[in-house]
This record gives sequence, C-alpha cells and structure tokens, in this order.
Amino acid sequence: MSKDAASVTPGRRRILTGLQPSGQLHLGNYCGAIQPLLGLQEAAAAGERKLFVFVASYHALTSVADPAVLRANCRRVVIDYLAFGLDPAKINLYLQQDVPAVTELAWLLACVCPKAAMDRAVAYKEKVDRGAKPSLGLFTYPVLQAADILGVRPDAVPVGADQTQNVEYARDLAGRFNRTYGDVFKVPELLVRADGGTLPGVDGEKMSKSYGNTIDPFMDEKPLRKRIMKIKTDSADPAVAKDPEASAVFRIFSQIAGADDLRTLALADRYRASGEAGMGYGEAKQALFELVMDHFGPARARRAEILRDDALVDGVLREGAAAANAVLAGVMDDARRACGLR
Amino acid sequence: MSKDAASVTPGRRRILTGLQPSGQLHLGNYCGAIQPLLGLQEAAAAGERKLFVFVASYHALTSVADPAVLRANCRRVVIDYLAFGLDPAKINLYLQQDVPAVTELAWLLACVCPKAAMDRAVAYKEKVDRGAKPSLGLFTYPVLQAADILGVRPDAVPVGADQTQNVEYARDLAGRFNRTYGDVFKVPELLVRADGGTLPGVDGEKMSKSYGNTIDPFMDEKPLRKRIMKIKTDSADPAVAKDPEASAVFRIFSQIAGADDLRTLALADRYRASGEAGMGYGEAKQALFELVMDHFGPARARRAEILRDDALVDGVLREGAAAANAVLAGVMDDARRACGLR
Repeated sequence: MSKDAASVTPGRRRILTGLQPSGQLHLGNYCGAIQPLLGLQEAAAAGERKLFVFVASYHALTSVADPAVLRANCRRVVIDYLAFGLDPAKINLYLQQDVPAVTELAWLLACVCPKAAMDRAVAYKEKVDRGAKPSLGLFTYPVLQAADILGVRPDAVPVGADQTQNVEYARDLAGRFNRTYGDVFKVPELLVRADGGTLPGVDGEKMSKSYGNTIDPFMDEKPLRKRIMKIKTDSADPAVAKDPEASAVFRIFSQIAGADDLRTLALADRYRASGEAGMGYGEAKQALFELVMDHFGPARARRAEILRDDALVDGVLREGAAAANAVLAGVMDDARRACGLR
Repeated sequence: MSKDAASVTPGRRRILTGLQPSGQLHLGNYCGAIQPLLGLQEAAAAGERKLFVFVASYHALTSVADPAVLRANCRRVVIDYLAFGLDPAKINLYLQQDVPAVTELAWLLACVCPKAAMDRAVAYKEKVDRGAKPSLGLFTYPVLQAADILGVRPDAVPVGADQTQNVEYARDLAGRFNRTYGDVFKVPELLVRADGGTLPGVDGEKMSKSYGNTIDPFMDEKPLRKRIMKIKTDSADPAVAKDPEASAVFRIFSQIAGADDLRTLALADRYRASGEAGMGYGEAKQALFELVMDHFGPARARRAEILRDDALVDGVLREGAAAANAVLAGVMDDARRACGLR
C-alpha cells in the first residue's frame, strides 16, 4: 500500500505534512524534512495549492509548558520554512490551532479507536522513556494526528521510514470509521521517504536537538564557523589519506551539496590525498563552512527580510488556515452527519 | 469543599449539569435528576439564565453507533425535559455537539492530565465490565466531561453521591491547568445530591434502562397501566397487614407524590389495614397508575404539543447553544492565551 517517495509524481494530488515547532531548525531537519518538501513543492502545480503543511502547535503542548516558548517556536518554524523557500502560492501553511475542528474530529475518531490500539503505540513509550511527561495528551497524540491528516482528505502523506506507525493509525481509524458509519474518509497513501542516511551532528552521533549536537544554518556567521570547527574528527595526520565516508564533516557536506556535486567530488579527492598534498580537517571544515554560507545564502537573506515583515507571515498563515478550514468544513459536515451529530 | 444540595440556595450562581441521551426517560430519571433540576430552576431568577443544561451527544458516541438512534435520543431527551417543565427563560438547554469548542478544551486539559489518573478511573472499568466497547473515547470520557464543565465556568455542579469522581476530575484538571499556566478556570463546587434512595423498577431492583425494568411516564395510557400492573409483589393475602416500605409499588408512589403527601399517607394506611378491610396489591397498583396519570398529566399534555412544534425545540436549542458558546468563547480565549496558542 505504500510507495517509495521517489517513485511518486505528486502532480495534482493533495498531500499533507506536519511540522514540529521544536525551536531552532538544524541541518538534520533540512536534509530530512525540508529538502523533500521542497521537492514535492517543485512537482506541484502553481496556484492549485494542493500541499497542506501545518505547524503542530496543539501537539507541542505535550512537551512545551511555557507559552512564550511555544509562540516563539511556532513563529520561528514558519519563518524558517518560508526562508528555506516554501512557496505560499503552492502550499497552504497553517498553525494547527487555527483549525480547531481537528480536535472535534479527534473525538469522533477516539470513539472508534480501541483503547488497546493506543496501548500498543511505541512512540508514547519511547517518549516517556526519554523523559517526556506521561500525559493523556501524549497518550492520545496519534488520534489527534489522525484527525490532522483525515480532516484535509489528502491523497498521500510523506513520512520517514521510522515514523510510519502514526500514519498507519490514521489509515486504520479512517477504515474503522468508514466501516461503522459509511464512507467518509479517504484512506491516504503513505509516501515513505527512502532513509537518506541520518546526518551526523558535531559529536558524530545523529544530529538531533535532544543531543545538543546540531548546526543551525541561520546562525550568525562567526558562531556558525565556530560551531562547524567543533565537529569531532579523528587525530589522523594531514599527510595520511582519509576515507571521506568515515568523516562527519564530509558526510554533512555531501548531503547538503549532493553526492554528485562537483564540490563534493573535489572534497573527496582532497580527503584521499596524502603526503605533502594531504589535507588537514581544518581545511575540510573551512570548505563546509563556505558551503553552508553559500548554499543557505539566499535563505539567510530571505529570512532577514521575513523577520522584518510580520504582516507577510500573518497573511500566509491566515490564507493557509482559511484553505484548511474550508476543506475541514466539508469533511466535518460529512463526519457529523454520518455518526448522527447532525 | 462539597455541600449538600439541600443546603444551597442557587440564587444567582451559575450551575451546569449534563443529560445522557439514553433514549426513553423513566421514573428513576425523573426522581433522580429531573425533580432536583426543577428545584434548582425554581430557585433561579427568571431572565438571568444561570443554569446550563446540555445533552451529552459527543459522549453518547461511546455507546451508540447508529446515527438515527443518536439523533432520535437527543431530540427525545430535549422534548421530555421541556415537557417536564424545564423553562427556557431560566435554563440554557443545548446539545454538546453545538458547542464544539469543548473538544478543543478537552485537548488542552488532556495535556495537563497525567495518563495515570485516567488509568485509575473506575467508571471506565465498570462500563467495560458491563459490556461497553473499550474505546479510547470511553477511556478519555472524563476529560471531555471536565471540558464541558470548565468551559462554562460554573460556580457549582450538581452530582449524585455515587458520581462524584468525574466532577472531581474536572476540579483536579482546573487546578493543574491553573498551576501550570495561571488562573484560567474556576474550580467548581460539588453539589452532592443526598441519595434519595434508589427508585425500584418493576422487578424490585434499582430502576435502570440496562435492567429493562423501567416505567416511562410518557407511555400511552393502556401500556402504562399494564406496565404498572407488572410490578413484582409478594403473595401476601389481602387480609394480611403489609409494610408499605417493603413494597416497590408504595416506594414509587411515595417518591413521586412525596412522602408527606396526603395521598401517600392514605395509601400507607391501606397497606397496614387487615382483615376484611385489607388491601390487595391490585388496588395499590391502580392507585399508582392513577397517580402517574395525574402527576404527569400536565407534562403529557405539554409533550404532545411540543412534539408538534419542531420550531420551538430548534429555537430553544439554538438559544441555549448561543449562550454556551458566548461563555466558551471567553474561556477559550483565556485558555489559549495562557498556554501560548494565541
């Protein structure tokens, strides 16, 4: 039932994806979520706005208890995505909180969801094991997520290979509701992203906010350079030839520039050089720093503009929410009628 | 923190109560819930509409899967309550589904509710043991109920002595939210109804829809009489003096007419008579039948009128929902701001 994302031409299909307002974005998010989204956007027809992208602010309440932090994080993720090139002419970008009917839909779905299915959810246990507050919100998280998805009746939902369970819940609940009350929900297809290999952080482990090892492409130039210089390397002498694929610096470079990019190939050659022509890691880090400044130059400039234009951001969110609410209104009308609430 | 309902003068206080759309009402509902509500209504000032009464249609989805049944049950409970004398000039009567912001509020509360608190809820286990579908909706039922309550910021919530746990959840969640985000919710007082003794059904057990032993005061005259004649009695001879309190017929009579009512006292005398003047149970049942026809005569007539006046019912529900939504709008605005969703 699922397809490899690469094999899909989104074209005119409706696609939904959610963003976590987890504060600062980093290169790991960029490679894992933003690049694929920009790819989907490229394939979409302008003016049709078949892509729905929402910031999961309701869900964030399960982990953020400070209202100022939540507001700032939501705003920041919107600004960053717009800076990265999300195009409001092609994408409906909205805050979950501006489409409150998803919470009503979550209730309707909860009433067809066996409690035992939630007991089996692995994400809840994993999050609690990692220190998350074991709230009822965290426990019922997948049902609200199913509502986010089913409420906009998407044809497909892109998802990382390790995060398929939550979208499977949405498919399962759509089926249960439809079998109980008649066909209301479209059962969306999974677009499973081929795992592009995880991006290493400055300590060589998977880049992740919770590990404190991230690199933020929107940092000021000086701290950004400093951060890149901190990437962990082995103590190999410049004169010794090195395996680029064993180096975090190279792997980050390669994922941003692209494995086949001439700059990547040139850097790989430098890694393999030895003797007097050999390369020290400082040189590789400097190359990565320059790549980041170059690659994200346009995004950094756009971001500086957007930060000065609150009305732009407000307008994008308002239009995005209006589009999502318009779809939800129809779906909710069908769902309420089907179960007898209208 | 709780007070006996009898000791409270509701006066200008805001009070909320919920009704289950469980189909047919019966004399047990009348004595347990409707009479006390009519008492509260009597004490309320006309025109102020401080009483909020809602039909729990969202909650009913946890037990009713047939949309036609749900619609009919909701309509019927509204009609029956209006027939019993609920006065729309004093009470905001609404369907839960017409105040959908309660589902959003339920999410906010779920995020401050420890999952372990729900694991301890006795009502879920009891309902599942009695055959209810163990859905996530049933499991999270108390949180939606807390939202129903806290959303209209009532001063007090009337509750049966055996149903205090759900209102305690609402008080607990109000406190948790307020401690996390600042004072948003009023912590409502419990108005614990002194247990008036349960009304026996036709089999002598507690009158309850699930036991199939109910008497519906709105039945047509003939089947109503037949139903009352079916009340289980012992086989005591008319000539033998009987203890009225040991008789289901008498106890139903007494609760409807009132223990001090002259008709009740007269019937008690008939029970105690012996010899040739002794009473057979048929006589007591006939007296109960006449009492029901007499006591509910006005309600039966009103009900026949209301059944012909859909616009009346629609108008009452529309006005009730508007009043509830107006209160919810303010409460939700405060709650959203407090947790950072605005």
